[in-house]
Amino acid sequence: MTDTSFAVILVEPQLGENIGMCARAMWNCGIRDLRLVSPRDGWPSESARKSASGADVVLDNTQVFETTEDAVADLNFVLATTARPRDMTKAVFTPEAAAKDMRERTAAGERTGVLFGKEAMGLSNDDVALSDAVLTVPLNPAFTSLNLAQAVLLMGYEWFKQADDTPGRELRMPGDTRPAGKDEMLHMFEHLEDELDARGFLRVPEKRPTMVRNIRNLLWRAEMTEQEVRTFRGIIKALATFPRKDG
Amino acid sequence: MTDTSFAVILVEPQLGENIGMCARAMWNCGIRDLRLVSPRDGWPSESARKSASGADVVLDNTQVFETTEDAVADLNFVLATTARPRDMTKAVFTPEAAAKDMRERTAAGERTGVLFGKEAMGLSNDDVALSDAVLTVPLNPAFTSLNLAQAVLLMGYEWFKQADDTPGRELRMPGDTRPAGKDEMLHMFEHLEDELDARGFLRVPEKRPTMVRNIRNLLWRAEMTEQEVRTFRGIIKALATFPRKDG
Repeated sequence: MTDTSFAVILVEPQLGENIGMCARAMWNCGIRDLRLVSPRDGWPSESARKSASGADVVLDNTQVFETTEDAVADLNFVLATTARPRDMTKAVFTPEAAAKDMRERTAAGERTGVLFGKEAMGLSNDDVALSDAVLTVPLNPAFTSLNLAQAVLLMGYEWFKQADDTPGRELRMPGDTRPAGKDEMLHMFEHLEDELDARGFLRVPEKRPTMVRNIRNLLWRAEMTEQEVRTFRGIIKALATFPRKDG
Repeated sequence: MTDTSFAVILVEPQLGENIGMCARAMWNCGIRDLRLVSPRDGWPSESARKSASGADVVLDNTQVFETTEDAVADLNFVLATTARPRDMTKAVFTPEAAAKDMRERTAAGERTGVLFGKEAMGLSNDDVALSDAVLTVPLNPAFTSLNLAQAVLLMGYEWFKQADDTPGRELRMPGDTRPAGKDEMLHMFEHLEDELDARGFLRVPEKRPTMVRNIRNLLWRAEMTEQEVRTFRGIIKALATFPRKDG
């Protein structure tokens, strides 16, 4: 199995449930190289399987090691996740910068990994010292404690984002329609303004241009589809032409 | 309480535990406006309190509503979180773009919120139709199911990031030291090269400049502190001067 993602290394994880949730978060982000260092409750784990919610591809390939040194031996660049400042001189990355750096290293043929410490305790100083740099997630300074799977998720998410080209904002519509053309919108405006003129709604000549512009702006902002233009013209016609059936 | 963050609206959440984990994820990101629409197991919830791991400020201010309409009534802009494409014409935001947009709206005096559907089911079409736009987290297309707290975390994290100025990479060091000056590094290099010259290590004249450059490059990359320069000069001296005590 070739894998171009980074390795997630959980050092002495305690609950199988948390390992499973990490696997789930990893697979959400397309990451499947999971390594465990001395999992307290052994491996494989039924509770991990249950909480992974179907991320079996991660659990089926999980490797178990006795020491952190063994778990990182084949890697070139390793980050240690920790929120606490340590009395060490070390580069500290945000998840976003780490993801960018790891993507570049991977493209250059390096293998990378991120260490996550055990629940509540975090990593030992020795594990931090074993790492090239530190990963710290910027969070509310009054409340920084993340659970294990959430720390894995945020790192995985930033890694996924680096290769994702989803537009920040996109108007999606059913496949059988398309954005309205300017001509269709302009015919709709003329239809509406004609019906309004005919009823004296736009009767003050000096106010008419402003009112027309305001109504058009409102409808331009709606980013209407061709189908919606037809529906809206049906609404104008219904209001202008048909009698109330309850009157 | 003035609150400049967005409202997190959980529609018909089922497990108190999940509500608590959402509260924890929110407070990690400095967000505390939590609203529940018809929580299945009632409110307040002991299991929510337990799983919030200390995010009490969120739970103490949680509001409960009967309908989604009631929960969003005071807001100006609402996003509906959904992974599934719907047969609707709707703008779709990524969390990053949504966070940026909501920050701008908040700065302009608007109040914003994000709807999250119940576990496994998601939001109803009516709740999506009630919203201004859709929020979709780009994830591994083969495995997009996020649990509730993780969806809340990713949106909150992007919101937090918008106002966070943590440098992507920063060299941190103990407070009693500082980065070495170029002069300190150059004196260290001269010290090392003098000791090596004296031992014939750099004896081939045409190779000496390259070797010196390579050794200097290696040590430049280490971004040494003033303290580390002194330590390294101590190492050179120890190796060059002191006899082995076990010999």
